[in-house]
Amino acid sequence: MSSEMLPPLEFSEAAQGVIAMARHAGARGWVPATSGNFSVRMNDTSAALTATGANKEQLDESGVIEALIAGPRHPRASAEAPLHLARYAAAPEIGAIAHIHSIAATVLSRRHEKAGFLRIEGWELLKAFPGVTTHETVFDIPIVPNDQDTDRMAALVEERLSNVSPCHGYLIAGHGLYVWGDTATNAIRHMDAFDFLLTTELHWEGMR
Amino acid sequence: MSSEMLPPLEFSEAAQGVIAMARHAGARGWVPATSGNFSVRMNDTSAALTATGANKEQLDESGVIEALIAGPRHPRASAEAPLHLARYAAAPEIGAIAHIHSIAATVLSRRHEKAGFLRIEGWELLKAFPGVTTHETVFDIPIVPNDQDTDRMAALVEERLSNVSPCHGYLIAGHGLYVWGDTATNAIRHMDAFDFLLTTELHWEGMR
Amino acid sequence: MSSEMLPPLEFSEAAQGVIAMARHAGARGWVPATSGNFSVRMNDTSAALTATGANKEQLDESGVIEALIAGPRHPRASAEAPLHLARYAAAPEIGAIAHIHSIAATVLSRRHEKAGFLRIEGWELLKAFPGVTTHETVFDIPIVPNDQDTDRMAALVEERLSNVSPCHGYLIAGHGLYVWGDTATNAIRHMDAFDFLLTTELHWEGMR
Amino acid sequence: MSSEMLPPLEFSEAAQGVIAMARHAGARGWVPATSGNFSVRMNDTSAALTATGANKEQLDESGVIEALIAGPRHPRASAEAPLHLARYAAAPEIGAIAHIHSIAATVLSRRHEKAGFLRIEGWELLKAFPGVTTHETVFDIPIVPNDQDTDRMAALVEERLSNVSPCHGYLIAGHGLYVWGDTATNAIRHMDAFDFLLTTELHWEGMR
Repeated sequence: MSSEMLPPLEFSEAAQGVIAMARHAGARGWVPATSGNFSVRMNDTSAALTATGANKEQLDESGVIEALIAGPRHPRASAEAPLHLARYAAAPEIGAIAHIHSIAATVLSRRHEKAGFLRIEGWELLKAFPGVTTHETVFDIPIVPNDQDTDRMAALVEERLSNVSPCHGYLIAGHGLYVWGDTATNAIRHMDAFDFLLTTELHWEGMR
Repeated sequence: MSSEMLPPLEFSEAAQGVIAMARHAGARGWVPATSGNFSVRMNDTSAALTATGANKEQLDESGVIEALIAGPRHPRASAEAPLHLARYAAAPEIGAIAHIHSIAATVLSRRHEKAGFLRIEGWELLKAFPGVTTHETVFDIPIVPNDQDTDRMAALVEERLSNVSPCHGYLIAGHGLYVWGDTATNAIRHMDAFDFLLTTELHWEGMR
Repeated sequence: MSSEMLPPLEFSEAAQGVIAMARHAGARGWVPATSGNFSVRMNDTSAALTATGANKEQLDESGVIEALIAGPRHPRASAEAPLHLARYAAAPEIGAIAHIHSIAATVLSRRHEKAGFLRIEGWELLKAFPGVTTHETVFDIPIVPNDQDTDRMAALVEERLSNVSPCHGYLIAGHGLYVWGDTATNAIRHMDAFDFLLTTELHWEGMR
Repeated sequence: MSSEMLPPLEFSEAAQGVIAMARHAGARGWVPATSGNFSVRMNDTSAALTATGANKEQLDESGVIEALIAGPRHPRASAEAPLHLARYAAAPEIGAIAHIHSIAATVLSRRHEKAGFLRIEGWELLKAFPGVTTHETVFDIPIVPNDQDTDRMAALVEERLSNVSPCHGYLIAGHGLYVWGDTATNAIRHMDAFDFLLTTELHWEGMR
């Protein structure tokens, strides 16, 4: 699927998707202390993106900015904007991106950091992701080291993900999860599926 | 109890029961990412059933279809419809069925897959199920392997359950729980009881 | 404090306290599948008590009965009514009783059943109970075996508790918690304190 | 930052901050059984503070008092008032203080009591605190022994904290967490960040 297949969105439409993702994550405790950020692609050059410092649980349009995918950084852009924008530049089929800090994502991302990936396999809920038709599926979720230089981290992420196909999300060690979809609605569905799978894995590892 | 004892329901009455079960499960996080499905028997030949892909937390009647228990598959039926319909065909006393993906059901179903059952015994809440009058009760909850061919899985389930009496639910390994009752209200009660018992068991196994 | 110090309540006042306790517990998941029961003393001879089978999360006055503390069993009384009424007969300072099924109470009550008590000590929240002025306090919470003959169990409980002073609650193995206070408001406070202490203990035992 | 930089607040403004912190904590289960307390500095001599025994989940202005930072104890002041007031006296940059009893804070504070501190390092969410710009940060959160003489405990806390800079909060063993910020809004943000970090740590320690 190319981005030409994704219909262009006006800023206010895209912002509604950003707000829906942010409130969904906020209600579930996945964006503590104004962490997390969310975006929706408008077209090939712009995306609606949460502004730095916004309270995600109560987000409204004033906390959403229009960011250029390949242009200069918006003054109110979150420090993690490059991690969103590089994904839009690299993958035309991505229409919405969520970054959350759930407990399971945070703990497992660090526990498996040295391996460089977290293997999840055999669970029915893997079928929540597009193109997955059986639980007999192996996901090696990439884990990248955390880095406060988000331009450098975005370049590393894109290098790592270029070898992983299909890829529905990745973890940053000790930090959290990035997950996406063609629409905000599907990004929410994938967020829920990842959190469920990671929480299941957290219990599973504790029990073995 | 034969199905003749269950009063026939109009589609809209049955759909209300489906919606009540779906929203109950949705509010508790048991149907992540549009997973899970719910049904209520209308009579000996039909049941109201959640359509494929419906968001269970916000289900309304547009997300419920009327499915034939022994007829051709409805075009909007969930892939798991056979697992509901085979139960109605086999057990006339069943009036409502819920399929949920709770964390405890998912983890324990896989942990005990090789044994083929999960034994739960000695807990007071076992009395939530009909005919159980003492905590000195042993439930061997059947666990069947997951299978994307749901017609084949339904046949296996019915074969397994034909040897288990009474039976109030079963697990699919790495997948989730099927549970039922004579009415939607009782299926909700049994859903809550199973989740409580399985969560208790998850802690219990972790502590020993 | 003697029961003469507790002001007599009309049925409707006492029922309001029963409803407040039931909804508080229901909202926290402590009365799954219509389990649990709640009562408020009206005077030396009667108490308002949840009727058998009532949904505690949505309790209203129609689900509350007036039970005689020492008289014949009310036809709609819960099977566990004797465990409430024997406490009122034995302890005039008790004005309200809650019986809940929390995960921590259920797991720990069975884990420590052989010891006959669960020792909790050193936590600040022990001060939530009347007369406790320091965290340097030891609570040996009695644990009695479960028994479907609730008259017999009530007699055993009263025998056990006659040696424990002060006593703010007890556990039934694999079943749940009984807790009380002079008023419904204080019984709610003690319910919350017990659940917090038992959940803390569950983590503590898992960590050692 | 000196307290001269914090604008003075009227009692009713400060009380609104106290109420916002208390309800935030109440909704998350961090102040069970009327535990916890909250304050907002008005100026160099006074602070708005929760009264003893107030139900924090439903706090309104009637449950908030004006306390003198260095004067005689207010008759309705919580027993823990000295722990708030000594912080305001020692640290002019503190504008709001929250004391909560979360499960993670309670368990970890006691587990690490002998060490005298809990080390937390390497997590992205450490950046929620002012002046922290990288996850490559080490927080040694001080842990003081619990003591029912809160004047004595406050003196010990201030002695301990005088050697820790910067410091964003501390634990009392088996009791809970104190956390602060320049405003009530930021104290809420720091409360959420601490709870997330401590819950993550609880899982992390259980897994190693």
